[in-house]
Amino acid sequence: MKQIDINCDLGEGFGHYTIGQDDVLLQYISSANIACGFHAGDPNIMNATIKKAKEKGVNVGAHPGFYDLHGFGRRPLHLEADEIKHLMLYQLGAIQALCYAEHVTLTHVKPHGALYNMASTEPYIAKAIALAVKVFDPNLVVYGLADSELIQACIDLNVPYAIEAFIDRTYQDDGTLTPRYLENSSIATIEESVAQALSIIESNEVTTISGSTIRIEADTLCIHGDHQGSVKLAQELQKALTNRGVQIKPLGVQK
Amino acid sequence: MKQIDINCDLGEGFGHYTIGQDDVLLQYISSANIACGFHAGDPNIMNATIKKAKEKGVNVGAHPGFYDLHGFGRRPLHLEADEIKHLMLYQLGAIQALCYAEHVTLTHVKPHGALYNMASTEPYIAKAIALAVKVFDPNLVVYGLADSELIQACIDLNVPYAIEAFIDRTYQDDGTLTPRYLENSSIATIEESVAQALSIIESNEVTTISGSTIRIEADTLCIHGDHQGSVKLAQELQKALTNRGVQIKPLGVQK
Amino acid sequence: MKQIDINCDLGEGFGHYTIGQDDVLLQYISSANIACGFHAGDPNIMNATIKKAKEKGVNVGAHPGFYDLHGFGRRPLHLEADEIKHLMLYQLGAIQALCYAEHVTLTHVKPHGALYNMASTEPYIAKAIALAVKVFDPNLVVYGLADSELIQACIDLNVPYAIEAFIDRTYQDDGTLTPRYLENSSIATIEESVAQALSIIESNEVTTISGSTIRIEADTLCIHGDHQGSVKLAQELQKALTNRGVQIKPLGVQK
Amino acid sequence: MKQIDINCDLGEGFGHYTIGQDDVLLQYISSANIACGFHAGDPNIMNATIKKAKEKGVNVGAHPGFYDLHGFGRRPLHLEADEIKHLMLYQLGAIQALCYAEHVTLTHVKPHGALYNMASTEPYIAKAIALAVKVFDPNLVVYGLADSELIQACIDLNVPYAIEAFIDRTYQDDGTLTPRYLENSSIATIEESVAQALSIIESNEVTTISGSTIRIEADTLCIHGDHQGSVKLAQELQKALTNRGVQIKPLGVQK
Repeated sequence: MKQIDINCDLGEGFGHYTIGQDDVLLQYISSANIACGFHAGDPNIMNATIKKAKEKGVNVGAHPGFYDLHGFGRRPLHLEADEIKHLMLYQLGAIQALCYAEHVTLTHVKPHGALYNMASTEPYIAKAIALAVKVFDPNLVVYGLADSELIQACIDLNVPYAIEAFIDRTYQDDGTLTPRYLENSSIATIEESVAQALSIIESNEVTTISGSTIRIEADTLCIHGDHQGSVKLAQELQKALTNRGVQIKPLGVQK
Repeated sequence: MKQIDINCDLGEGFGHYTIGQDDVLLQYISSANIACGFHAGDPNIMNATIKKAKEKGVNVGAHPGFYDLHGFGRRPLHLEADEIKHLMLYQLGAIQALCYAEHVTLTHVKPHGALYNMASTEPYIAKAIALAVKVFDPNLVVYGLADSELIQACIDLNVPYAIEAFIDRTYQDDGTLTPRYLENSSIATIEESVAQALSIIESNEVTTISGSTIRIEADTLCIHGDHQGSVKLAQELQKALTNRGVQIKPLGVQK
Repeated sequence: MKQIDINCDLGEGFGHYTIGQDDVLLQYISSANIACGFHAGDPNIMNATIKKAKEKGVNVGAHPGFYDLHGFGRRPLHLEADEIKHLMLYQLGAIQALCYAEHVTLTHVKPHGALYNMASTEPYIAKAIALAVKVFDPNLVVYGLADSELIQACIDLNVPYAIEAFIDRTYQDDGTLTPRYLENSSIATIEESVAQALSIIESNEVTTISGSTIRIEADTLCIHGDHQGSVKLAQELQKALTNRGVQIKPLGVQK
Repeated sequence: MKQIDINCDLGEGFGHYTIGQDDVLLQYISSANIACGFHAGDPNIMNATIKKAKEKGVNVGAHPGFYDLHGFGRRPLHLEADEIKHLMLYQLGAIQALCYAEHVTLTHVKPHGALYNMASTEPYIAKAIALAVKVFDPNLVVYGLADSELIQACIDLNVPYAIEAFIDRTYQDDGTLTPRYLENSSIATIEESVAQALSIIESNEVTTISGSTIRIEADTLCIHGDHQGSVKLAQELQKALTNRGVQIKPLGVQK
């Protein structure tokens, strides 16, 4: 039986602010990436989100980002390798302590926003992240974009990884995501998103914006939780996967 | 041979800001309480301070505080017990991860500023802190004011603790520190501070502002690092202790 | 024809976060209190909210608060009178500059959250606020709770003021709001809230939680924008006031 | 008699943190650029610095920066033109209100750190800053690097400006500052700095790192306040200027 991990960024509120519909989305995913207090999240929200994920049997991962609440971690900050390592360790330690107190095992790490993007293309950032994870807990699985520098760094450093594909974003011929500033960066309809998911899972293929077909092998699919249509997409995806006999399940044995 | 632990709050800068003279003070103390990013400190400063303490053979402890950089953690915030627990866990995990990456063992925890003061007098805060430490790492030693609710909570919950006394602050007849808003809250001269230290170590006594003598048993003495005279006091204290055959040494077997 | 000002706190998002339904609420109110970047709000959100209010013909006021985004300005901070004055001036200047650039006149000031509450009972805080407003712009109208120290300070310092009453909160016999930690602090239904509004406007009376009737003269009624039912309440209130021939209108000539 | 404006960034502390030696430096300068709470500074520090500058007869200017305390405003943030405009207006309004309360006239604006650098080379940022100043107060003088886009935008928009040169930084043949990541970006000795100052003032010339001589016309010279040798440099500069009959004086009639 085929299986796929569905991951979603959760716990991205701060203090009085909430974002997304964490409670509903947790029903449709297998892995939660929980914000660690730098781009979003705070100790109380992290605790609440960890508990909710545990209740639903959803894997808990860290979602560390740049220290930039105002920009929600989406603005590139040009840091040194050591600074990247320290902010990773800090946030990993923080969330692991909160997990530990709830008897939850931290399973994975997905960098957030600009940190994720920069780790996809900048080898020194990719390496700093992979190193921080390896030092902190060599069993944590790093989620990274297919063919990214982050995945390469994990391979080089022998850090477990999971290849991530996106179902609400379009791809370019070289396998990279169409940048957000281009009009066709997002997939317009839920139907097309679900179709892209099925194509990735069943044929390891995706149709690019030019109409070409490229190969994509993915261990995990990302659903963005802060869209208007996030919940609907999650529901339709679950329905389609069930119909096709694909099980939504966290990663098992790591590569 | 008599021995005493001398502790000091370090790593209290933020970003471009520095405070205190950490490098010098590390020569005269046995335990460093390192700020954890909430009232002061950031991942880079924490890393640098951990490394410096390791180099000097100084014990590394956590110095968690309220999330209030502008107020330097000195302003009381009225939080729920659970919120206290979460902020403790978050900061403990963060610093432990940074210690672990440098092969340093985190040895103790001293709450900072308003959190320390509130934990001295508010049983629910004291208990929340002691519980968080116990859950996180039952070997960590909690530093608390003599006769405080924090020490009481540690006793009740079987959490290791160290009783702290102050050498640059005056005491009242009931054993509490003279509040900072009173004129005579601080000890004016280095000589008097050293004398108070010796009296605590050798006779377990301190002379209060009324002239009475009260009993104080202390495992650790605090030096404030952000004073003008911090370094001078640290030097004179070390000299006096050496002359009297008292060894400056971290706590050994915990109570 | 009777008239009443309806005010609402708006622009309380931050960066990527939004809160409340500003666009809808602006249709039902005459005065917007716009967050100034300390407890909530940022320059972009302030600009956008000022423009929206202008479009709807709604008066723009400042809604300054404590520098505490994490606590949304609802946690008491014990500051000196001068510190209060400075944070008021800073926020007033900031919002006025943004208003000025949009050719909007800043009309009023309503302190937020803990600052509002502390200004109601602490004379030195009330005075610091009134003084800051007077120095900054003697035409600004200060919104304060009926019978509060803030109103008293405005009277003493000859600063224009508007007496505010609440329609979704219950009152105690002494004219103060029932504290939020008590169960009956909020009015349960929209009908009762509207009834309290009408009673205040038409009879200058409110029924307290003990069942007594007390006298309340109000120039402005507050609608909280972050409730589930905020929009519905605003709509029903508007309907009821129209039916009774009461006009929703900003304050005219100031006292 | 020749005259020159000497400007320095002041008030760059935050809460409990201080930086630089404002009190001393104020004796040797004619214009203070005061941090406005985004990259550094807070309402209390702003108030105190404004008062000190007034006492010394030093002109008070705004020193607005990116909202990035952790990076001290030195990290480039890629914002939209409107976002730049709003952050400028916000900070200008804030400092002007604090000036107004102390009966001090705000005279000039110098963007800080990364904002200054980006305004030197990015026309849309330069224009956004010049526009914000023009809207806010058309009498404010914008301080910008010689030959920069910021100066060009001021010329285009008819905004008063002052051309700034640096005395502790080296120049390249094209008139730009040698980037900080290059070894020879800073001038090593106080003597050389003073010599560069005199050369700029008396001959409108500066010797570049290649040994060429380029033309620089400057209205104001910047002294960095956070160096070890800031005070010494300020003193020596004052002495040298006095000896050469050059008066340290704020700009008079603006261009």
